[in-house]
Amino acid sequence: MKGSTGSDHPHIVLQDLTSARLNPSVMDIKIGSRTWAPEASEAYIAKCLKKDRESTSTSLGFRISGLQVYIDDESGFYKPDRNYVRKTGPDDVRLLLRNFVSSNPSSDSETGLGPDWSLASSVYGGRNGILAQLLELKTWFEDQTIYHFYACSLLFMFDNGLALKSGGSNAEVKLIDFAHVTDGNGVIDHNFLGGLCSLIKFISDVLAETNDYTGTNGQVEL
Amino acid sequence: MKGSTGSDHPHIVLQDLTSARLNPSVMDIKIGSRTWAPEASEAYIAKCLKKDRESTSTSLGFRISGLQVYIDDESGFYKPDRNYVRKTGPDDVRLLLRNFVSSNPSSDSETGLGPDWSLASSVYGGRNGILAQLLELKTWFEDQTIYHFYACSLLFMFDNGLALKSGGSNAEVKLIDFAHVTDGNGVIDHNFLGGLCSLIKFISDVLAETNDYTGTNGQVEL
Repeated sequence: MKGSTGSDHPHIVLQDLTSARLNPSVMDIKIGSRTWAPEASEAYIAKCLKKDRESTSTSLGFRISGLQVYIDDESGFYKPDRNYVRKTGPDDVRLLLRNFVSSNPSSDSETGLGPDWSLASSVYGGRNGILAQLLELKTWFEDQTIYHFYACSLLFMFDNGLALKSGGSNAEVKLIDFAHVTDGNGVIDHNFLGGLCSLIKFISDVLAETNDYTGTNGQVEL
Repeated sequence: MKGSTGSDHPHIVLQDLTSARLNPSVMDIKIGSRTWAPEASEAYIAKCLKKDRESTSTSLGFRISGLQVYIDDESGFYKPDRNYVRKTGPDDVRLLLRNFVSSNPSSDSETGLGPDWSLASSVYGGRNGILAQLLELKTWFEDQTIYHFYACSLLFMFDNGLALKSGGSNAEVKLIDFAHVTDGNGVIDHNFLGGLCSLIKFISDVLAETNDYTGTNGQVEL
């Protein structure tokens, strides 16, 4: 491709993944208990290791980097503080995963009238839901030995209005942030895969807690 | 249980796993890219991290701690040097996994008359082989959130003479070394699971390279 100077050199083509959505609810989850490649510099490894240990990456195998959930035109978006989201524990991660699929995500759960999880089955569940897409990705990661994805994220997206109106949500999972992808050298990306399996278990548990869900062990009831 | 002093206190009961075997071939594989628990001391973490990075733990998600293969009464056992075994690369790990299921494991592969992999299908393959047992363990690790197994090993065992004579091998996989097991706190052991999936891919590839094996993607042809 020709650059703006007229010379021929490689380009990165970027895509705005949410451009087709009116009020997208999105969550960015960095996958892997380790965000550094073995061949990285000592200084970079030390920096990443500190962040991994301070966040949930080391303990859970992933960390939520950020999320926003569309409520309505009046209230706008629920967008919890970035530092809270990244450094929270397993119970808070469960709460955030539930809030993400609630029509009232900012409700105070201490009053007993907490988030309603009303979109759990349409966003996480079903034939084309987020869990089904994660399981498909898992199957690929169990076999592929071409790439290792360090510090990459999975982006969850859905259209809140659509989910409430029709029961369908257009839920979508995209692999994003390829700045630290390395050669797999014939070995699977066990670091990404382990974190992905942990996330799958969390999502499965949220689904299992809703009445609409009848599967177990990460299996989707189709 | 009463102690030798007559007082009542907890005991650890140890089992000699190879006692029922005449000439056991065994391999000890430490699972997980990380051998330290997040709550360990800084000094212990630094020590483990160094070992993990110097061995294949970080890159492959597991490291071979040692192996011995029975050849015959005259030659005794093939037992490669412990330091070579632990610090080797992916290609050497593949070679060791092949040597483990060869009747002539110490043969020089450079002469073109290398190890024969003659026991691959009876030890790694089949309904009760090592791969089938690893896949069963994987299913358990995808769901269990009770324990995290740091610096634990899988012990592969089989009886070489039996495998050569009858085609059956009594191949067995045991989880050993429980000194660093911690509470799972409702999270799967993504560190062990990732390493286990990597090992499964290695074993599947060795099997796929033998003519007797027809499965793909870590599936066993039963």
